This record gives sequence, structure tokens and C-alpha cells, in this order.
Amino acid sequence: MADVVCFGEIMLRLTAPGHERLLQSPRFETALGGAETNVAVALAGFGIDVAVATALPENPIGDAAVAALRGFGVGTDGISRRGKRMGIYYVETGSGYLGTRVTYDRTGSALATVGPCDFDWPAILAGARWLHISGITPALSEAAADATRTAVECARKLDVTVSCDANYRSKLWNYGASPASVMKEIVTGVDVLVAGADDFREMLDVVAEPADGGDYGSIFEALSEQAMTAYPNLSLMAGTWRDVRGANSNGWSGCLRCRDGFHRARYYDIGHIADRIGTGDAFSAGLIYSLLNDASPGEALEFAVATGCLNHAIPGDFHRTGVNEVRALLSGEGLARVQR
Amino acid sequence: MADVVCFGEIMLRLTAPGHERLLQSPRFETALGGAETNVAVALAGFGIDVAVATALPENPIGDAAVAALRGFGVGTDGISRRGKRMGIYYVETGSGYLGTRVTYDRTGSALATVGPCDFDWPAILAGARWLHISGITPALSEAAADATRTAVECARKLDVTVSCDANYRSKLWNYGASPASVMKEIVTGVDVLVAGADDFREMLDVVAEPADGGDYGSIFEALSEQAMTAYPNLSLMAGTWRDVRGANSNGWSGCLRCRDGFHRARYYDIGHIADRIGTGDAFSAGLIYSLLNDASPGEALEFAVATGCLNHAIPGDFHRTGVNEVRALLSGEGLARVQR
Amino acid sequence: MADVVCFGEIMLRLTAPGHERLLQSPRFETALGGAETNVAVALAGFGIDVAVATALPENPIGDAAVAALRGFGVGTDGISRRGKRMGIYYVETGSGYLGTRVTYDRTGSALATVGPCDFDWPAILAGARWLHISGITPALSEAAADATRTAVECARKLDVTVSCDANYRSKLWNYGASPASVMKEIVTGVDVLVAGADDFREMLDVVAEPADGGDYGSIFEALSEQAMTAYPNLSLMAGTWRDVRGANSNGWSGCLRCRDGFHRARYYDIGHIADRIGTGDAFSAGLIYSLLNDASPGEALEFAVATGCLNHAIPGDFHRTGVNEVRALLSGEGLARVQR
Amino acid sequence: MADVVCFGEIMLRLTAPGHERLLQSPRFETALGGAETNVAVALAGFGIDVAVATALPENPIGDAAVAALRGFGVGTDGISRRGKRMGIYYVETGSGYLGTRVTYDRTGSALATVGPCDFDWPAILAGARWLHISGITPALSEAAADATRTAVECARKLDVTVSCDANYRSKLWNYGASPASVMKEIVTGVDVLVAGADDFREMLDVVAEPADGGDYGSIFEALSEQAMTAYPNLSLMAGTWRDVRGANSNGWSGCLRCRDGFHRARYYDIGHIADRIGTGDAFSAGLIYSLLNDASPGEALEFAVATGCLNHAIPGDFHRTGVNEVRALLSGEGLARVQR
Amino acid sequence: MADVVCFGEIMLRLTAPGHERLLQSPRFETALGGAETNVAVALAGFGIDVAVATALPENPIGDAAVAALRGFGVGTDGISRRGKRMGIYYVETGSGYLGTRVTYDRTGSALATVGPCDFDWPAILAGARWLHISGITPALSEAAADATRTAVECARKLDVTVSCDANYRSKLWNYGASPASVMKEIVTGVDVLVAGADDFREMLDVVAEPADGGDYGSIFEALSEQAMTAYPNLSLMAGTWRDVRGANSNGWSGCLRCRDGFHRARYYDIGHIADRIGTGDAFSAGLIYSLLNDASPGEALEFAVATGCLNHAIPGDFHRTGVNEVRALLSGEGLARVQR
Amino acid sequence: MADVVCFGEIMLRLTAPGHERLLQSPRFETALGGAETNVAVALAGFGIDVAVATALPENPIGDAAVAALRGFGVGTDGISRRGKRMGIYYVETGSGYLGTRVTYDRTGSALATVGPCDFDWPAILAGARWLHISGITPALSEAAADATRTAVECARKLDVTVSCDANYRSKLWNYGASPASVMKEIVTGVDVLVAGADDFREMLDVVAEPADGGDYGSIFEALSEQAMTAYPNLSLMAGTWRDVRGANSNGWSGCLRCRDGFHRARYYDIGHIADRIGTGDAFSAGLIYSLLNDASPGEALEFAVATGCLNHAIPGDFHRTGVNEVRALLSGEGLARVQR
Repeated sequence: MADVVCFGEIMLRLTAPGHERLLQSPRFETALGGAETNVAVALAGFGIDVAVATALPENPIGDAAVAALRGFGVGTDGISRRGKRMGIYYVETGSGYLGTRVTYDRTGSALATVGPCDFDWPAILAGARWLHISGITPALSEAAADATRTAVECARKLDVTVSCDANYRSKLWNYGASPASVMKEIVTGVDVLVAGADDFREMLDVVAEPADGGDYGSIFEALSEQAMTAYPNLSLMAGTWRDVRGANSNGWSGCLRCRDGFHRARYYDIGHIADRIGTGDAFSAGLIYSLLNDASPGEALEFAVATGCLNHAIPGDFHRTGVNEVRALLSGEGLARVQR
Repeated sequence: MADVVCFGEIMLRLTAPGHERLLQSPRFETALGGAETNVAVALAGFGIDVAVATALPENPIGDAAVAALRGFGVGTDGISRRGKRMGIYYVETGSGYLGTRVTYDRTGSALATVGPCDFDWPAILAGARWLHISGITPALSEAAADATRTAVECARKLDVTVSCDANYRSKLWNYGASPASVMKEIVTGVDVLVAGADDFREMLDVVAEPADGGDYGSIFEALSEQAMTAYPNLSLMAGTWRDVRGANSNGWSGCLRCRDGFHRARYYDIGHIADRIGTGDAFSAGLIYSLLNDASPGEALEFAVATGCLNHAIPGDFHRTGVNEVRALLSGEGLARVQR
Repeated sequence: MADVVCFGEIMLRLTAPGHERLLQSPRFETALGGAETNVAVALAGFGIDVAVATALPENPIGDAAVAALRGFGVGTDGISRRGKRMGIYYVETGSGYLGTRVTYDRTGSALATVGPCDFDWPAILAGARWLHISGITPALSEAAADATRTAVECARKLDVTVSCDANYRSKLWNYGASPASVMKEIVTGVDVLVAGADDFREMLDVVAEPADGGDYGSIFEALSEQAMTAYPNLSLMAGTWRDVRGANSNGWSGCLRCRDGFHRARYYDIGHIADRIGTGDAFSAGLIYSLLNDASPGEALEFAVATGCLNHAIPGDFHRTGVNEVRALLSGEGLARVQR
Repeated sequence: MADVVCFGEIMLRLTAPGHERLLQSPRFETALGGAETNVAVALAGFGIDVAVATALPENPIGDAAVAALRGFGVGTDGISRRGKRMGIYYVETGSGYLGTRVTYDRTGSALATVGPCDFDWPAILAGARWLHISGITPALSEAAADATRTAVECARKLDVTVSCDANYRSKLWNYGASPASVMKEIVTGVDVLVAGADDFREMLDVVAEPADGGDYGSIFEALSEQAMTAYPNLSLMAGTWRDVRGANSNGWSGCLRCRDGFHRARYYDIGHIADRIGTGDAFSAGLIYSLLNDASPGEALEFAVATGCLNHAIPGDFHRTGVNEVRALLSGEGLARVQR
Repeated sequence: MADVVCFGEIMLRLTAPGHERLLQSPRFETALGGAETNVAVALAGFGIDVAVATALPENPIGDAAVAALRGFGVGTDGISRRGKRMGIYYVETGSGYLGTRVTYDRTGSALATVGPCDFDWPAILAGARWLHISGITPALSEAAADATRTAVECARKLDVTVSCDANYRSKLWNYGASPASVMKEIVTGVDVLVAGADDFREMLDVVAEPADGGDYGSIFEALSEQAMTAYPNLSLMAGTWRDVRGANSNGWSGCLRCRDGFHRARYYDIGHIADRIGTGDAFSAGLIYSLLNDASPGEALEFAVATGCLNHAIPGDFHRTGVNEVRALLSGEGLARVQR
Repeated sequence: MADVVCFGEIMLRLTAPGHERLLQSPRFETALGGAETNVAVALAGFGIDVAVATALPENPIGDAAVAALRGFGVGTDGISRRGKRMGIYYVETGSGYLGTRVTYDRTGSALATVGPCDFDWPAILAGARWLHISGITPALSEAAADATRTAVECARKLDVTVSCDANYRSKLWNYGASPASVMKEIVTGVDVLVAGADDFREMLDVVAEPADGGDYGSIFEALSEQAMTAYPNLSLMAGTWRDVRGANSNGWSGCLRCRDGFHRARYYDIGHIADRIGTGDAFSAGLIYSLLNDASPGEALEFAVATGCLNHAIPGDFHRTGVNEVRALLSGEGLARVQR
């Protein structure tokens, strides 16, 4: 179907206008989002042949989601039209000391209630080079965790590279299984893992002792060393780093460990954030794009961090810059100037 | 708690702008709606002491719904804060030959998943004169049907008048029970029933043979005669009548049968409809208001039809005129002129 | 200053979006309006050299009003910048049987609190051919009535033609004087009077006995005959005629009496009204435009009625068509077709 | 590339909000439109495999147009990315007696300045069953007329059916050639021609003598008879019929002549038009859809007229209903009722 | 009526969109605001039983204000429906070096023209524990100053604690009385006074000699010491501290003096302000909330400053966070992160 | 016609909402802009008698532009109504590391296709004291360059001071001529030149060797010294200085060389930029305003930089503050505080 397949839930995002709280005005801005779909849209914008595998209901909202993905050039043949509803999440955009708040309404969504035969993985992954998943899907329901496991197993059989963004969300994982019990198994099938400190602890039982004054890079250095020892299948780990000075003002960087080295990226001081959500997914997309194009690990990390940096400037989850704009940022051409 | 209690589901309404189809633009206008709540809001606007009994989740969307009802002066003490989500319905506003389309996303809503002890009916109905329900709640789930039955039984014990808007919706009633099996029992506890031809047939097994060329009034005359014979508890039945010349242009009237007579109301030719949804609920509110104020059946019918007529002019489900504006329409003061 | 001077209050108009009631959404569409200013804007759009005389406060709202008039090409040198506030009126746009509702907040406006020396009429009217006033200004306050009287007296001395739109508004006239006591004097200085049945009765003590079944034209024929006898200074009277079938659907025409005849205009069946307010002012503007351009009384009436007809299609009080569009309507070119 | 190829210009449509005149508010609603692309979008919505051939500049506006078409499922491989700009048209939405007004800004557009080698017709039409063009493209420039001719010639060689919507626009055709000189040649390559009275006269030199009181059907009957004699290549002609009672209220129907008969369609009385533009294109799409699906001529005509009827209800040029909604209208299921 | 009563004017706030200047676009965002009402809304959101005493006209704007307060759970029985208009204030939201600009249109408002018998203070304050006023009401008119005095006197008699936010506004106080002459008397009835350096100087004739390099805390320390000596009735004084680095970027803190000590609060560096207006009122609400809940003075100050800090993130005057969000900020939980 | 004449192109500006990318939502905010017109609007707002000379098409878009200028009090008699279209530019507002992006669609605009006789310069400049041009107009086309040359020559003959903002734009200058070949001649007729480092290099062949660590002021000092030697006609040169820390956060200052000295202005740290475009034009306007009012060079520079600083706070190209607000910023009155 496509070179890259991203498997995960896509939701309708309903955002209160400006910095308003939910229903302060009787209006929502709408968008679509979901960790793995965000990656797919970014990759499509970078010219990659990518498809999404997910489940969407047969109703006008599901139709609109399919049309939107098609508009971005994302393949939609792996979408199973089934189930009763598409999940929703509400967003209030914070500022200053009040963070952006996300309220989920994803109970009973099409992907959470998926059946064992809803995805024909050999067909979906036929000819693919890469499968991207995240730790969100296994958190939704037993059924969704099973589907994720099956997808990863099929990918391994077909020699498809598997990347996973661990993405631990404490408010999910309500169906009884512990994150670690599920994720430790799934990660044994993963090649490229994107994870942060919470993810290591909650999902992989990996905890590092941060030396006094140790910054995030040092912590990740220690954590990733342990994880790559514990999971010999992993060829590469990466993580992002965020200094939250305020809801609209963050420092941003990342680091990456491969089998033969550890890399830290340039640090970006993002003084005005248009939309925080989806920036980690843009990082993953930048990473996958670079690796697919045979970038060195260090280059891949820089491209990933720069992609995530630019994503802070774009409303909605989806990434909307071309490769050329990421390259301009990397080259120091003064992308922040007016471009005319 | 209040003179009138309305029991039923309240949903978040998401409307595409203007006459657009869903997600044609990335924006929704929001409102709240639900048959019984619409009645409550209209009654509050007419100065009646009214409260809503329903279930709403403990989240910002549920909070906003409670605040909105409070704003209209509707009592909210009978709202059980429970469950995972608030139902949603999407609206596309039709025009000409393309009707307004409603898409429901109410699976798993707080009221549909209510437990047997979530409502303390004796407390909720204490001191009340009137309970209003509709045939929508029993259509949601076994649990919701049980709650409706319990409410009606409690009302009868407390000598509270019960009104019911039959409101047959073919797309609901998915949990196994047939509408008639449930509704025929509930209706035995009802005093005032609002129903249309579909309702009679699907819910009460009452079918009239319309004489050739018989208009809606004649049909209702026949149907209601049979129904009031079959249900001796009913003191009054009413129904609305709509000539759909186009999505925005309807004829509108209603008729009413009481134990000692049959009444037909003035006919309104509504040439430009701002929002069709909720007009039947405004009719019910007008009827209840009048009966609570000891209007004669004929006056009550005229007031109800006029209230429903004005509701066509107001965006959203909720009614937003005072009694004075309904009276002005009834008095023929030329309400359609510019009022300055 | 200009060929035509229009004297009267200009207000900020705050309109609820769509057909919403006031503050149903937390948003207002803004515009400017006022009977005499509406005439001025329409005349400027027809290429007439026209100026407004009014009073506006020295604040950003007053500044914006001046800028807006300047944008339409209306002269603003006759605007006295004084007083504490600019009047406001709120608009809810009705539909079907619910008429558009206007709520005034014009207490203490700059024009209502004008002083005797705030307008230098000889300077304002120097070189003018025409002064237009309405019966609204004298309704605001003693001071405003005095200013109107002075303006008319000065016009007579300078041989400036005076037109007046009687515009009786029952909710104004709160300062003690009766409409008739004030207007009967002012009308003695008027050449061209636009009036309707209410105006004749309340302002001129002229009442006609409508023959049974008499239409508006017949009534106006009788009323205007009496009025032109009572006021020998009047050279021409005109009135508009409206069949209010609904808030958005009106029949529209007008008639005109001059010293040597009576004319009735073509009847327009306006099936969809975008904005009712200001249509009478557009009629007056069409009349003045035609008379300034030496049209015959019958032609002037037809042009005036057509201008008013088109004004129903334009949001806001202000008229926004050129002479060419009025002419196209008069010529029967099928203006209602798509123009491309 | 696709079963159906539509060749023609796509433009950015900038619409003033509501019924406002251009720039009355500092805002435009945006959409895309163009006669042949409108046909393609409607066909894609009906499940047809369709592609557009056009020229678009290499800039973000061109990118957005490509993405939008892709979103509708329209093939975009036949789009030549070239030239300096994409044409624009501005729309003011009329009401009552003031018609909708279109202002073009299409000078120097990518398609108007196309070169002789910009389209590889054999590749674009490879495997296609149908080519749709209109009389607008030849009106743009010599180069665009040449491209149209070449496309039709290539289609004939490849046995691809050719349909053409004559679409005479008096404000185009500015490059020196007369419409008839160009179109008479092109029509010799056409199988299915959609045309109206103006088109016959200006483009085909065919004029019928309407018998007194003859309605549009009779006129079209006469005109199409002459045209099908003059152009033996034509297998089918169709036209639409519009009674313009006001900018928002039209009667609508159509008729069709094939080699063995003449058909008139049901008449629709459209009382509230959301958007007039693109309705003729929806008619063409309905016709092509039906003929591709082996409908009888009479059925094809009814389907086409019903598609056009529904298109009046949808903002923007593009059609946005499924086949099921057209069928519901045809079956008399009361589509104008609220659908829930 | 309620535990806490807030007395003061409520106005309609009309805000230009985004950072536009007034009427740059023909649109206003609407909200309600007024120092004392802002306090009431914040308290209601914190779960306090609070009511507003004010005067509002009997018109749809007044109705909407009452409904809005009711929606927030604020008691409205103390609202006198009288007078001709509700005051208005216009807001332009600044950025960088251009500050937010407020233009008042409050002449002749209902509260400014209140009569001596319009408030039945013994009834309004019956059962209350706290009365909150500000120095704005006495600045409006003689009548409003009298009403304030009467309220405070009544509170003293009933042993109701009185808080006052001094809120000196140089553009008010136009009716002849000097601020000090009025406020010095009122303050003798106050227990808790919120004031800044301007307030001390203009209203209390208290001026401190700031030692060289003295920061705001030192100044307030000196000023409050003098004031608490001069006014032995005062049990507690508090003030806020703002470093205006730009219209959108402020430092924010506060300090508090009680009879047995002086406290300084944590300093917040607010890098992106969504809406500056009402932050001082949120501070007062946080203070009152804490004192009502028996917090220590130091805790009360920290809660008040944190409430004010969060209010900078919320559009409109009204506060819209729960106690839990203020607590999260105080606990250092990283509220600025995305909350999901 | 006016004291100051500004000659140059005016375009329609179409801005994506908020920080969205083009057509992310189907909506544009509209404005007008163009370097020289921006100067004219700012000057008019400062009370200067100023007119624009440009070419605009005879269509509703051209009409709206004329009306808008008239609204600002800018003279429009020097506007030649001709040509086929008005240029357009699209704006995406960046944030953080993603700069604002401008996409031009100005091919074939009225001014670019102007003929040699379209401007009657002696009439346009009659009585003027100042002509302002920029280096953008000569970049459009041969014809536009000719018109600029003719305007400058005529100004010299009439002793009108000429100012020029060099404004080098690399994406223009497509018609064959090199910037230097054209501009070096034009600059020989200029008295006051605003230029930056790019302009010196590309247009005047002037390059300075920045000493290591040399800031912009030092560079401009060197460049301007050379330029004023090379162009003895120049009496004054000025330039702005921008530290781009992010798309929304810039440092801003300027410097000025006159025949007897060099001046540097106060440095502004603009932490939140509402709209970057037009700030340089505001600088030029501030400079011209000051020089016309006989300010000293140093005062003129400070006023110019302050005007440009405030312009960053105002959406759209056009400046919208009065002289009083610039003065308040210069006087250090704390303009960033809330003004009430």
C-alpha cells in the first residue's frame, strides 16, 4: 500500500477560540489529530508515500476524516470503516502559567472497539518499509492492544522496520492491564523507540539516577543506555526535551542514542508557541523521514528537532511545512524573518 | 425542587456554519439541546419554576451544560453528575429541497448508562406539580427506560401530572426492546400526551384510516379518539401539523383532543425558518405553560402552536421569547414588523 | 459645503449574528445608522455632493464614525465634535413571524444634548441646494428640536429646498412636547415630505377615512390631499407601502402626490430580505436624487421605490448600490440573475 | 489516469460574508470553483474515478488547490504546475431583486497562458472513457482554445466520449476570436452537449423562433432539433431551465434531446437558495454519471436535474451530496424534512 | 441572600477582535465586567455563595447580564431593575509598547442614576458574612456614592465584614466631589482594604517616601503602615505589584499587611498575557475566598496572587478557574505543561 | 492636490486567520497595503494633508480601495482608474522560528501596466511640498520604472522634496533591468533616502566593511557616509535596525545621517509583535512627519523609530495611532500600561 504505514487512532479535535475556556463562546475550531496520524501527515508533506491504518465509523464525521487525510496525500486504504463513533478531544489553549488543557471523549471509539479480524495486516503492510505505532493505542482497550501486537508481529515477519513513540498517558490505561505488562512485550518488536523519562519508568521499568544538577540530556543518556541493553532489538532511541517556562514559551531540544554513539541537538528557545500539541509527533516524523533518507543519526536528530520546533508555530496537530522550511531553519537562513 | 421537572438527556449540539455540510469549514457553532431540556428552558423563559433531571459527566463539558441551564433559570439540583460522556449531535442546516440532517453521537452517554439508584425520584419530585418526559429516553437503553418508568410511577404516587412527548425516532431503539412494548406501559401513567401519526403507529399500535383527502387534522382526530379510548388515563392529547414545502418553508399548526372536545389551531405559513429543531418542544412547553395557568384547552392549543411558530425564528433548540411575544403573535399585533 | 446637507443623529448599530437574539453569542456585528445619515450615504453613492451635520463625541467611536462617512465620500465638516456619547441601537434580525427588534440606547447622546450654538447653520448651508431632516431629531430632546427648527429656518432664508421624512417613533418623544405641537411648525418650512399613515395622524393631525377595502395607495391619496391643502408650502409628498407577509418577505411600493397629480409605483414582491432597516431612507435618497436631477415626479417615485427595494438586499442601514444597479432594476434587465 | 477527465480552469473563489458587498467587512470566505472542476468534484462524490486536467502555479495557492481536489478524491496527475497565478473570482451573494454578482480577476492565469506542450493528452486520456470540457476555456485565450481543440481531437482518436457545457460568457472572449468561429469547430468533436438559448445563438448560430407563449422547453425543443441536424456527431443535448423569481427563489428544471426522443424533467420550485453558482455544473455531472451508468436518457435527465436542484442548497461551487441523497429526492421520500 | 454580597456597577464590555483598534473590523467580542462583579464571579467559581447588588435597566441587555450572572451561580436577587441604560466600555487589546486602551461610555447608567431607596440594604445583607465594594462606585455620581456609604453603614450594623478595592480612576470622579473627601469617610467602615500607591495618595492622602531603589514591596510596606495607623478599623491591607515590561509581558506579585505582620508573595513572570483586565479583581476574590476559609494572612496572599496570575490567561474580565487550578499553581505541579 | 504625495502600488492583502497557513481554513482577513500608501495613511493619521498617486482598476475591488483611503482622509484624486487588476499579496503570520511568509500575486497589475500618459505629474504635484516613492515601483516593470523617474523629475522641477524608501525586494525586478541600473539614476533626484544594508549593496553598489563585532549602527554609519559622498543631492539618510529573535519578538531601532551628524535612536525590545508588515513604512512616515514639522534630525529619528515601534502592535499594514500616542511612548509615560 505505501512505504510507511502509521497505525493508531484519529480523533476530532474541538478547540475553544483563542485562549477561551471550553464553551466560553458557543464555537469550536475543528481539526483532526492523533499521534500516529500526525506522523503520517507530516511525512506526506515531506513527500513520503505514507498510509494510515485505523478504524473510523461510517458517518459524515468519518467521511470527513478520510477526505482530510486524502487531501494531505495520506493513503486511506488501510482504514477500516466500522464502529459507532470517532473519538473526540477538546482543547483549551493556555497562556502564561495556565497550561493548555485537553479533555478526552474517546470512550467507545471505533478503534477501541475493534475486532480481531478488522485489520488484514499482511495486506496492509505488503511492500511497506516502515510501520509506526505509539503507546497510546495499546492504552485504549484490550482489543486495541491486541491489534497493535498483531501489527508489530506481522511487520517483523515482513522485515518492516518498526518505530514506536512510547507516549505514556496516565489517564488512559483504564481497561485493567498495566502499561509495563503490555508495552514491554510490544517493545521487543520495535527498532526505533521514541521515549521520555515517564515512558521509561511506567512502560519499561527503566529508571535512571539523575546525578545532581543533571539535565535532561544526561538523564536520557543514562536511561537509554539501560534500555538498549535490556532491549537488544532496539537500534535507535530518541527523546525530546522541553523547558516549560510558560504555556507559550518553551525551550526545546532532543537527544538520540544509536548503537555507536549519543547525540544532542541544537537547543531552540521558542518564545511564542502557536500550538503545542503534535510537536512530539512532528519530531518522530522528522526522525523517520531522515532515517528513510539515510541521514546519519546526528543529522536525523537535528532534522527531527527542527521539525518539532517549527510545528510549534502551526495551529492544529498536523504539521504543515515542507522539507525546504525545515532545511532553512537548520541552515540558519533566518527563517524567522519575513519571507517575501 | 421545582413546580415542573423535565427528565431526559441533554446533548451538545455541533452545527456546521450557515448551510454548510459537516466540516466543510473547520468550525462548529455550539449549543445544547434535548427534547425535555428544551421544554424546561422554554418554561423558564415563561417564568415557570422548572428543573431538569438528567445525568451529565463530571467534566468541563458537563459543567458548561449545568452553567447554561442555570443561566436560563432552570433548576439543576436534579442533575446526577456521573458517567463518561455527554451525547453529541451534529447538525447540517438544509435549504430548499435538502433537509436539515442530524447525525447522532450519543453512544455511551451518561444518561444511557445510568444506574437504578442514580435518581432519587421522591426527592426530585417533592413539591412538584408536573413531570415532563419524552419517548426518546426509553429509546436510549434498558437502563434509561427503567429510569423513565420509575419516574412516572413516582409521579403518579405523588399526584404529579405527567406529560409525555412520544417523539418516535427510528434510529434509536437499538437495545432490543420494541417501542410499543415499552411505551404502551409508560403511557398508562401519562396524563397529557403529545404525539404524531408515526408515534401512534409505532408506539401505541394505533392506526387510523385516513379518509381520502383527509388532512392531518382529520387523521389526528381519528387517531386520538382511538388512543383516548385505549388509555383512559389520558386527559388530553395534542399534536403538531407541518406542511413541508421546503427545508426553510413550512406550514405549521396543531390540534388537541380533550375529554370533551377537539380543537384545531390557527395555521401559520412560515416562509423563512431560521432553525427547525426544537419547535415541537416549544409547542409542548407552550401547552404545559397554558395548562399550568388554567387556560382552556383551545387557548392552550393556540398558545402552544404560536410558541412553536416563533421557535422557528430562533437559532438553536432553546426557545428564547417571553410570554409577551407569544401573546403579541396571538393578538395579531403584527409581530413580523420591525419592533422599535 | 455641499449640494445636499443631511441633519440628524448617527448611531452605532450593534447587531446580533444571524437570527440570534441579543447576546445569545458573545459577538456583535457593528455598523452605523441613522435616518438622515443613511440618506446621505445613499446620495454619495449616487454621485451627489452631500454632507452630514450632526454631533459626535471626541472619542474613538466618534472618530470611527467620521472616518466611515468620509470613506463613503460624505462631507464631515458639518459635524460638531462634542458631548459625552454616541447613541447606540441593538438589532435582532427576525424571521418568519418574529419581527426584527430594535432596542435603543440613545439617552444622553451628543446630538440630544446639543447646545444652541453648536451648529453654524449659515456656514453649513452656504451654497447648498437641499437640506434633509427627519422627524426623529425633534423627538430626541428640546435641544434637538430647537436645532432642527433653526436649521429649517435658515434653509428657507437661503432658498434651500427642505425635505423631511416624518418618521414617527412612538418610543421617542419623551421630553414632554407632543409630536404634533413640534412637527406641525417644522413642516411649515418643508417642501418635500415623506410620510406614512402613522405620521399623518400623530404629527400632522391628519386622518383619512379609508373606504372599505381601500389599499394603502387610496389611503395615502386621501391623506396627502388633506395635508397638501393644510400645508401650502409642500410641493410634493411621498410615502412607501409595505405588505408584511413575514419578517423576511414583504411587498413593497410607494406613491407620490405633487401639486398636479398622484402617482403609484410598481409593486415589488421581495421574497428574501437581507436587512429591513434603512429601506425607507433609501427611498428618500432615491427621491432626492431624482428630483435634484430633474426627473419627473413619476420617474422620481419609481427610482425611489427601486432604490428602497434594492436596499432590502444589503446588510446594514447604509445603501450600497450605484445608480446603474437601480437603473438595471427599473429597466427590467433581470437584475436578480447572476451577474457575471 | 481515470475513467473521466475534466479539462478547464480552476479558480480561487472569494466570497463576501452573508449578503454583504465586496469588502463591506474585511473578510472573505474562500472556496475553489471552475465549471469543469465542479463537474469532477461532483462525479468523485458519486464514486466515479475522475481526474482534472488544468494548469496551476507552483505556489501555496496552487498547492492548496491540488490538496483540495485530492481531498475530494479527484485525480490530480493531469495538473500542469506552471504559470504565474491562479485566477480569482469574487462573489457577492444577492437576495430578493439584487442578483448575485461575480467579478473576475483571471487575467494572466496559468491556464490562459498555457503553452502548446503543457499537456500530454495521449497520456492524460489513456484509458479514459469520457472527457468533459466547457466553452469557458476556449474563451480565455488563443492558447487555451488551442489546448481545448487538441484535447478534443485526441479524445476522438482514442474513442473517448466528449461532453461539453457550452457556457457562453459575454465578458470573456476578449482575445479577438468570435465565440462561433471557435466553438463551431470544437462542437464537431463533441458527443454530449449541454447548452442554453444564449449558447445556441452566440456559439452555434442556431436561433429558434419561439412561438408566442412558448416556454423554455419548447424553445429548447426547437433549438436542439436544429443543432442536432447541423451537428450529426451529437448524440445527446441537454439544457437547464430557470425561472428567476428572485435571487434566492428560482424554478428549476431541464430537458434533453437524444436521437430518438425529447424529454422534460420534473419542475422544482426552490424557495431558498443557499448558493446559485455551480448548479449547472452539478446538472452536467448528474448527466455524465447517469450516462456512464447506462441510465436511459429520461432517467439521466431526471438525475441531472435533481443533482442540480440539491446543489442550490450547498455553499460553494462544489457539489457535496452522495448519490443516495439525489436518489432520495427522486424517490419523493421527503428529503426536505429533518433527517435524523 | 448570600454569604458574600458584591456591590457595584456591571457593564457591557465590547472588545475589538485580536489586537485591532476599535471598529477596525465591524465586529465586537462581548463580555460583561465590573470590578465588584468580577469578584463575585470568581468567588462563585470557587464555590462561595455570593450575590451581586447592582442596578440594571429593564431591557434585553439587562436581561442578558442577569442571565449571565445566574449562569455563573451568582445570586441576582439584589439587582434593582431600573434606569435607562447599562454602562459600556470598549477595549482595544495592546501588544508590545502599545498598552490596552479602555474607552468608557457609562454616562447615565442605571447605577449612576440610582435613587436613595433603590436598595433595601438590610434585606440584601441579611445573613451575609461579607460585603465587597470598590472605590469605583463612589466615583460615578453623588447618588452612587451615597448608596455605597449606606451599604457600608448597614454592613457595620449587621456585623458584616467589609472589603474595599480602592481602585482610583482619574477619568471618573467628575461630579464635583474629591476622591479623598468621599473615600476617607467610606474607608472608616472597611475591614479589608486593597490599595496601590495611587490609591493611597489620591484617596487617603497617604504618601510614603520611597527610599532610593525601594521596590514596590518597600513602598507598600511604608504606605500600609501609615494607613493602618490612620484607620484603626482596618484589620488587613493588601496590594498587587506589577512590572510592566510590555503590554503582554508583566511581572506580578503582591504584598499584605495585617495587624501582626507584613507578607510578600511569590513573584510570577507572566510572559504572555491573554487579557489583563480583571486581574486585580481576581486577586481580591482570592483574598476574600481565603479569608472566608480561615487561611492565614500569608496563605491568603499567596492564593490571591496566584488567582490573579491565572486570570491573566483568561479572555474577558471574569475569572474561570476552579480552586483546584489555583492550588495546582501554588503547589508547583507545573500547571503550564499540557494537562491531559 | 496635497502637501505630500505618495506614489506607488496599493494591493489587496489576504491574510490567513491567526497563525494558520494559507487556506488551512477557508477564510481570509482582508486589508490593503503597499509601501507608499502605508506612508500616506500614517501621515493622514498624523494630520498631514496627503494624497496617493497610483493606478487601480475600475471594478468593485478598486472602488473599495479608493473608499478605504478616503476613509483615512487620504486624497484620491491622483489615482488613475485603469488596467485589469489590482495586485494581491497573501500573508501567513509566523511565530517562534517560523517567519511570516508573503506570497505575491501582482503580475499584470494596474500600476505595472501603466502607460506613459497615465499620470499628469505637474497637476498631481501642483502645490505639494513632498513626494514619497520607494524602490518597489521601479521593480515592477519598465513602465512603472518610467513613471517613477518622470515623477521624480517633475518633483525636482517644482522644488518638491523627494523621499525614497529603497526597499530592495529580490523576488521582484523580473523585467530585465538590474536594480542598480535603475535606482542609481532615480536616487540622484532624491533628498531623503531610507535604506538598509541590502539596499546599499544591490541598488547603490555601496558596500561597507563591517569591523569585527560591528553592530548595525556602525555598518549604517559607514554605508551612509559613502552613499552621501556618492550622492551629493542627498540631504539625509536613515535606516532601521532589527534584531530578529523570533518571528514575534524583535529588537528595533534606527539611525540617521544628515550632512552635519550621525544619530542613533533608543532601542525597543518588542516582545510580542501583532503584525510585522508595514513597520518600516511607519518609520518613513514618522520621519517625513517630523521633517515637515521642522523637527531636528535627532528628534525626527526618535519619532520615526517610535512610530515604527507602535506599528508592530497593530494588525494590517496601515498605521493607526495618533501623534499623541507616539509622543506618549517617547515621553516614557508607560504607554504599555492599561490606558483607562
